[in-house]
Amino acid sequence: MTFALDPRLAADTHEIGDLGLCRALMMDDARYPWLILVPRRADLAEIADLDRADRAVLIEEIARASEAVRALPGVEKINVGALGNIVRQLHVHAVGRTAGDAAWPGPVWGAGVARRYAPVAAAALVDGFRRVLMREGAGKSRGVA
Amino acid sequence: MTFALDPRLAADTHEIGDLGLCRALMMDDARYPWLILVPRRADLAEIADLDRADRAVLIEEIARASEAVRALPGVEKINVGALGNIVRQLHVHAVGRTAGDAAWPGPVWGAGVARRYAPVAAAALVDGFRRVLMREGAGKSRGVA
Repeated sequence: MTFALDPRLAADTHEIGDLGLCRALMMDDARYPWLILVPRRADLAEIADLDRADRAVLIEEIARASEAVRALPGVEKINVGALGNIVRQLHVHAVGRTAGDAAWPGPVWGAGVARRYAPVAAAALVDGFRRVLMREGAGKSRGVA
Repeated sequence: MTFALDPRLAADTHEIGDLGLCRALMMDDARYPWLILVPRRADLAEIADLDRADRAVLIEEIARASEAVRALPGVEKINVGALGNIVRQLHVHAVGRTAGDAAWPGPVWGAGVARRYAPVAAAALVDGFRRVLMREGAGKSRGVA
């Protein structure tokens, strides 16, 4: 089996690009800055299903996604989660939270209804995340000016 | 600063023991099998605040906690989360989920009210987790029969 992104994840997100292990996506929900990392491996549901080498890369990509979100104005806390109760394909969320945001202090998953970005706003944010996330250590892009 | 467990985490959990990096706790909530890992480092709020070597250990301890929970009867999915909106000390949840459980398919955090274990049940579960989690690769216990 080869990796294929779950169509529900594709429908809810904008693609940023591929890091060393994961496909990086931006959730199409303007309530929060929200990245999703999907390891490009087939048939995974749990972090424990990855081998040890891939897990070491995953936690670095989680840290990098967290820092990219944390750098945005107003972000006070990062919520990292791998749930998969609905979409079983292993995916890890990194969500920027602010006191008083739409779900505060509860979790964002299942809370309310997504507010879609205007296309121009989504494109600008994706471009910014692409520059930050794929600038260094991203495997494919390493050494490319 | 030295590590000190946040008193709110201590009040809601039973202590299992110390792994290589984290203190392992069992949430005192009989609705779900639920472990919490707290890196024994001072002044951390985010996974990205750990150094790279500690992150590599953390993801292995998350995988180990996930497997310990997954081995219990009826567990269909593991939810891993590091939120910290209320308790800022970095801590990572590994929660065993089953279709139809008290929060299904939503997240467990902030959903309903904890149902405390009877003391004898908590002690038996903690004992089981201690044997599984501290059997191997746990640093302090390595090589001890």
